[in-house]
Amino acid sequence: MPHIAIDSGEPGIRGLFRFRPETARPLNGLAEVLLRGPSTLTRGERELIAAYVSSLNECRYCSSSHSAYAAAQLPEGMALVQQVCTDVEGAPVPAKIKALLGIASAVQEGGLKVTGQHVAAARAAGATDMEIHDCVLIAAAFCMFNRYVDGLATIAPEDPELYASRAQRIVEDGYLALLAEPQHGT
Amino acid sequence: MPHIAIDSGEPGIRGLFRFRPETARPLNGLAEVLLRGPSTLTRGERELIAAYVSSLNECRYCSSSHSAYAAAQLPEGMALVQQVCTDVEGAPVPAKIKALLGIASAVQEGGLKVTGQHVAAARAAGATDMEIHDCVLIAAAFCMFNRYVDGLATIAPEDPELYASRAQRIVEDGYLALLAEPQHGT
Repeated sequence: MPHIAIDSGEPGIRGLFRFRPETARPLNGLAEVLLRGPSTLTRGERELIAAYVSSLNECRYCSSSHSAYAAAQLPEGMALVQQVCTDVEGAPVPAKIKALLGIASAVQEGGLKVTGQHVAAARAAGATDMEIHDCVLIAAAFCMFNRYVDGLATIAPEDPELYASRAQRIVEDGYLALLAEPQHGT
Repeated sequence: MPHIAIDSGEPGIRGLFRFRPETARPLNGLAEVLLRGPSTLTRGERELIAAYVSSLNECRYCSSSHSAYAAAQLPEGMALVQQVCTDVEGAPVPAKIKALLGIASAVQEGGLKVTGQHVAAARAAGATDMEIHDCVLIAAAFCMFNRYVDGLATIAPEDPELYASRAQRIVEDGYLALLAEPQHGT
């Protein structure tokens, strides 16, 4: 049961967006720019970083959601996402993405854990300053989203189908469209 | 030295806002709503939560900044802020604020660390659902801001005067005004 009264009964962060629309706007604005805005990282790659950090933080709602969003936008689909979340070292991702996931993992532990070696490895694999910046901010943002969702003990459904059906809406309409959804929209 | 090239040379998150204005907008929008928007928590109390979490995360730039912003907006000034950041149990704050700081400390460790006992204690001390929500989101947001600032190894000046002078601008004009500042503004 959530720690506060979420009248809409919606799960995860969606119930919180309804509870506090004033903070929902900048939070969704941030997700839209970081995960879907113009970038040399694909939307699938950025969602993969979000899913990986959410998995490290053991946030079921966010890891299920962003795993579904990554899978829907990566040619390799859910198998790759699950491999990254369970065995990142063995996962068949390009060297640049693996180095960025290494930075994301350090950020998840704490900002001061990111070393010059992490950054040099990413740069050697072809990452630009903007990609390194966005990777750090995506990882940091999910350390926020995960704490927000679990710190208020919101509901995290178990059915993977629920997350997969949401994924199609995110892929088509993006994060800002969530704000315009009628209550109890599916 | 920062991990990426911050051309403006500005310290901390200010250099990052200049580097990536697209993400600066929602980040400052979030800070403005959470720390300065309409609330039954005072601006000083909300900045105190931000300073406390930043101190737990050992983020010098953010803890110095938000300690100065809290001190400028609390009747008890910097002495109270420093006491909260070094000895929260002994700090002379109202029971409701102490309980909210307990929630914030749990959020800093991880979302799943917030228990029903933390929340019941806050409610028994008079905290509303909205105050509990905002406390969790402030704490979570500073787990993001701290990781962003330190994960990119931005510069954190040591001179407390620099932070105190910024505090006056935040108190008067708020976070969104930062976005309109000319480069190398002080």
